Amino acid sequence: MEGIIVIVVLRPHSSREEIESVKEILHAHGLSAMESSVMDSSMLISEGTGTSELISIVENLPAVERVVVVPGVQRLTSRVFRPENTHVRVGALTGAVFGGPEFVVIAGPCAVENVTQMNAAVDTVVGSGAVMLRGGAFKPRTSPYSFQGLGLAGLTLLAEQRKRTGLPVVTEVVTPKDVEFVAEESDMLQIGTRNMQNFELLREAGASGRPVLLKRGMSATIEEWLLAAEYLLHVGNGDVVLCERGIRSYDRSTRFTLDLSAVAEAKRLTHLPVIVDPSHSTGQPHLVAPMSLAAAACGADGLIIDVHTDARNAMCDGAQALSGEQFADVMTRLTPVVEAVGRTMAPTRAHSLASV
Amino acid sequence: MEGIIVIVVLRPHSSREEIESVKEILHAHGLSAMESSVMDSSMLISEGTGTSELISIVENLPAVERVVVVPGVQRLTSRVFRPENTHVRVGALTGAVFGGPEFVVIAGPCAVENVTQMNAAVDTVVGSGAVMLRGGAFKPRTSPYSFQGLGLAGLTLLAEQRKRTGLPVVTEVVTPKDVEFVAEESDMLQIGTRNMQNFELLREAGASGRPVLLKRGMSATIEEWLLAAEYLLHVGNGDVVLCERGIRSYDRSTRFTLDLSAVAEAKRLTHLPVIVDPSHSTGQPHLVAPMSLAAAACGADGLIIDVHTDARNAMCDGAQALSGEQFADVMTRLTPVVEAVGRTMAPTRAHSLASV
Amino acid sequence: MEGIIVIVVLRPHSSREEIESVKEILHAHGLSAMESSVMDSSMLISEGTGTSELISIVENLPAVERVVVVPGVQRLTSRVFRPENTHVRVGALTGAVFGGPEFVVIAGPCAVENVTQMNAAVDTVVGSGAVMLRGGAFKPRTSPYSFQGLGLAGLTLLAEQRKRTGLPVVTEVVTPKDVEFVAEESDMLQIGTRNMQNFELLREAGASGRPVLLKRGMSATIEEWLLAAEYLLHVGNGDVVLCERGIRSYDRSTRFTLDLSAVAEAKRLTHLPVIVDPSHSTGQPHLVAPMSLAAAACGADGLIIDVHTDARNAMCDGAQALSGEQFADVMTRLTPVVEAVGRTMAPTRAHSLASV
Amino acid sequence: MEGIIVIVVLRPHSSREEIESVKEILHAHGLSAMESSVMDSSMLISEGTGTSELISIVENLPAVERVVVVPGVQRLTSRVFRPENTHVRVGALTGAVFGGPEFVVIAGPCAVENVTQMNAAVDTVVGSGAVMLRGGAFKPRTSPYSFQGLGLAGLTLLAEQRKRTGLPVVTEVVTPKDVEFVAEESDMLQIGTRNMQNFELLREAGASGRPVLLKRGMSATIEEWLLAAEYLLHVGNGDVVLCERGIRSYDRSTRFTLDLSAVAEAKRLTHLPVIVDPSHSTGQPHLVAPMSLAAAACGADGLIIDVHTDARNAMCDGAQALSGEQFADVMTRLTPVVEAVGRTMAPTRAHSLASV
Repeated sequence: MEGIIVIVVLRPHSSREEIESVKEILHAHGLSAMESSVMDSSMLISEGTGTSELISIVENLPAVERVVVVPGVQRLTSRVFRPENTHVRVGALTGAVFGGPEFVVIAGPCAVENVTQMNAAVDTVVGSGAVMLRGGAFKPRTSPYSFQGLGLAGLTLLAEQRKRTGLPVVTEVVTPKDVEFVAEESDMLQIGTRNMQNFELLREAGASGRPVLLKRGMSATIEEWLLAAEYLLHVGNGDVVLCERGIRSYDRSTRFTLDLSAVAEAKRLTHLPVIVDPSHSTGQPHLVAPMSLAAAACGADGLIIDVHTDARNAMCDGAQALSGEQFADVMTRLTPVVEAVGRTMAPTRAHSLASV
Repeated sequence: MEGIIVIVVLRPHSSREEIESVKEILHAHGLSAMESSVMDSSMLISEGTGTSELISIVENLPAVERVVVVPGVQRLTSRVFRPENTHVRVGALTGAVFGGPEFVVIAGPCAVENVTQMNAAVDTVVGSGAVMLRGGAFKPRTSPYSFQGLGLAGLTLLAEQRKRTGLPVVTEVVTPKDVEFVAEESDMLQIGTRNMQNFELLREAGASGRPVLLKRGMSATIEEWLLAAEYLLHVGNGDVVLCERGIRSYDRSTRFTLDLSAVAEAKRLTHLPVIVDPSHSTGQPHLVAPMSLAAAACGADGLIIDVHTDARNAMCDGAQALSGEQFADVMTRLTPVVEAVGRTMAPTRAHSLASV
Repeated sequence: MEGIIVIVVLRPHSSREEIESVKEILHAHGLSAMESSVMDSSMLISEGTGTSELISIVENLPAVERVVVVPGVQRLTSRVFRPENTHVRVGALTGAVFGGPEFVVIAGPCAVENVTQMNAAVDTVVGSGAVMLRGGAFKPRTSPYSFQGLGLAGLTLLAEQRKRTGLPVVTEVVTPKDVEFVAEESDMLQIGTRNMQNFELLREAGASGRPVLLKRGMSATIEEWLLAAEYLLHVGNGDVVLCERGIRSYDRSTRFTLDLSAVAEAKRLTHLPVIVDPSHSTGQPHLVAPMSLAAAACGADGLIIDVHTDARNAMCDGAQALSGEQFADVMTRLTPVVEAVGRTMAPTRAHSLASV
Repeated sequence: MEGIIVIVVLRPHSSREEIESVKEILHAHGLSAMESSVMDSSMLISEGTGTSELISIVENLPAVERVVVVPGVQRLTSRVFRPENTHVRVGALTGAVFGGPEFVVIAGPCAVENVTQMNAAVDTVVGSGAVMLRGGAFKPRTSPYSFQGLGLAGLTLLAEQRKRTGLPVVTEVVTPKDVEFVAEESDMLQIGTRNMQNFELLREAGASGRPVLLKRGMSATIEEWLLAAEYLLHVGNGDVVLCERGIRSYDRSTRFTLDLSAVAEAKRLTHLPVIVDPSHSTGQPHLVAPMSLAAAACGADGLIIDVHTDARNAMCDGAQALSGEQFADVMTRLTPVVEAVGRTMAPTRAHSLASV
């Protein structure tokens, strides 16, 4: 990680010869030159000990649009590379855009269980203003004896809700070989906290073409979190939304310690959107409302909230899920805070709902 | 901590004989009975294995107003004992009230240095709407070779600002023998994070008659924090304001990890006001604004913010202090968030300012 | 995780019909009955709310050898299930046995780089008494721009050392699809700290038939660590060695905080062997010797140590690797401590060495 | 903490004039010059931006024995200042010496309760080889409603055991005003984990003339711990023994996480002795033996262990105390490990015991 990092953003429609001549000059000066493509730009990522002289030579080559010298360990995720906010669109016309002026709330049950549960949960969250749905089909569980999710059947149930409502869905993928079919059945892939450094999974998810929701590892530093995102951008996927979901601390009065200063700090360091999971972080329904409001106030771009209309019988993490009434209350209280920081709640774009 | 805790709140103006007869009955049933007086109530605090039968006997004694059975380890600080919010008034007419509808911002330099610095800092924070002043005269410092504060001279400089502005001041007290004169020269005693479990200091501060600002220990659980407050209430001082100031976690991108869920959780467990220190927790000026807004959004009753008009030359923690412009910006952005959660910014009650 | 867990250990050579009749009785009483096979025993793992009456019925069925009721969340890894130490043999005649009276030291470079480096490192560690070799071919790296290991070429270089010395080798596997060929080229699969809860990888590694070295997650509780091992046993692989490698704490004077009380506690809770990694935990060569001695003293079954004969030019984690001289010193000082706790250093069983 | 730190060690019997002339030269070059006296040396501690030229001038002054330039933030506690181990003698002829070749075990009950308890506990620990006694009279307790120690009566009971056995005793002091009489009744003052940064208490304890046992704060870094010791040395008390007693981490399977790498690291950084408390750190009797052995193996100079002959009825922390049999077992297993690292168990120097 020594030396400097030079990102050479290439002009669109440069010829292969023009690009190769840039690489030759970099190589001649002892720099590597890896071709990459992210957020509609082609670029060369170089590492070495280049001089300002070299940079001015490269800047003037015909294939070169601009040259960015990045000082830290992050590169493509850094605001040095891209100062303006990245907008990540999920879903088509009825979808959601993270990182722009709208505040996006994703809601739904922790785990997909059956049609009845999904209809009930989705009706209630959409009715209260959620603009995107969540639901786990593949659940990473601490014990091999715990409910591991419905798998493919769960994916199908989730896809039914996607069709019924027209809203985009996000669901977790836990192993590289599942990426392809999870990407087919959903609009956004979630990488969970236990897999933040499952680098092969990151590479596959990055290559899938789907937007990715990257949860922070429960003991990851901000730098490690951004470098995990760097794995995604580095293989060409710029549609990454970060999600703070609580870190491990000595204090166990909450399940994890929600680290909201990390949200503000990440927003400063990276151009990527950052959202907050107040459900898994606190593990307690009565803390979801205050933490949702705090997240909106400190600059988060959205929330992902567990809702279950029959929490006592939930097959997974029911204790922390909000009831429909509690979720409606959160949404009501959230609106003025979102507006107080100069944003608006993303408007519902769901179809009028009919049961599946 | 086994058995039950019974708090017998006594009627005002009960006679000594009436009170003694309550104690006799408690003793006869094997319960201790410690007399205490807090928040304008006299009471007996008992510990034992009392039955509901005993409680109904005691409830009907002439000296007894009500009997509260507290299940957990907190007692006087618990909402079980006192469901409604406690309002803590600091200073006289021009003072501040914590825990009510007004959101209270305390500001000033980390350490008192000299008249010029104090005039400049106080002018700027009062001008932007701070309603209470801070400034350290006795500084607990990790190294014996670091600046330890001006001591008595610092107290005098702070008292001058109190007189000049009419605003109440809070300052830290670090050892029991200093409590008396610090209490004379200030309106509120601060117990710092390193002294949260300095129990002799808590007892002295509790006995001083002054309101106390109790910072959370940097590795204290919420329970330990409330039990530290219990030391204050237990000796008869109900004017306690809690302050979350960041905990130690593995992540050192911020100086400490601000634990805002602890604010919401403490507000649920205790009737005491809770404020937030966004300066010492994050250690970074650019995080003070977002964390201030988040604190207000999640239900904090106020903030305490470091401001220094010449931070580069500050003798203590200058790196984290806001400039006057930065503080003004925080206050501007804070107002709509405070209003979005149904509260108002405490109005300035300062005298028109003249230099000391 | 509610109710009781009943493990029905089946007699060897029970007929299919006899086994089915046990399952029927369990089902008739509302218990599940999953067939499993681990450590040379076939068994049924049941979950439900069985009565002691049911258990005495089951105990008397012809196919049933014994019935174990396990109270906690661990099952096959628990000493309740298997009181005596499990011995895990790695490699053939010249191999190592973990969990018995011998103390086993694994050593080698963090990452496999080239033939020269491997020859030098292996010669020095074998000369000083290491009985098993380590070397990483697939490296999980925080940054996508860091050296990721030589991959297949690295595996080949490691296999050459295995052949040259006759000693068993352990190497990390980072993704399910690699398990098969890594298992072919090595004697033991390492699951790294970042993959402790990569459950699909655990399942594949468990099914590989190779012994597994399971590193503790850097923020895993002991319970979570044992449940990760449970994933391996649960698919039939009882040859699991646990490895404590440091946890994340607030103190960064060492890279991680080596948690030796977790070693003693894990040895109490589980029958599986537990070893210690003093290199990655402390991140500092001068702490490897004292922590190695401490590990031996508190009951660890062995060590895994980074050694590089040219640490300054190491491609990965060179800063923490011991030189050959430092490793020899550790081994010399280790011997009397190992003997003081009633064990012996595992004797070298290497071939006389010739360069590859 | 900027600039350099220069410690000017003065020749014994230098005249006041000679010393003043050194100070003048330092002042003339813009350095402060604080007089201090520790470990039989008088010295001037200076801070500034001195040049090597200045140092060579100062070195040649008649009053100057040597000049030490210390690079880090520790000064008098640093091995740069004093490379050889400091030996701290506690008590007179029958006392203990920490930091030398002997390994010192302190034992006794957490809290002093009554004569019977003290006789029983002391008889058993002395019989098994403890060479120094512990017992708390002033207990810092998380809750104001918990047993706070017997206070003066407890001190008297402890002093009786001191007289009866001839062995030195250590006991905790919790507030500055108690230092004087606790110093009279005991041989060593303990500063507990909650008071490690109670700086006024450190200054008083430092000035008492008694050796001090300084426990590490439960969330203190090694640097903060050494700087707390610096407060003691800085006022002239060089008889300081450090004690690692566990830190707060996310893992609550033990009460605290015993950080043995901090012992090895502290031994490297400072010349002061370092011992380990395996009782309060783990909070579990079955972990005391393995952690005691590990402490000895990694270079600790001794142990402090809770023993209670009737742990179930202990008034404080009984759950973690060893029985007499368990303590005897620890001592038996400890001896060979102590010898394996080239040290010896400190021999008992107690009087033949008679009941008080």
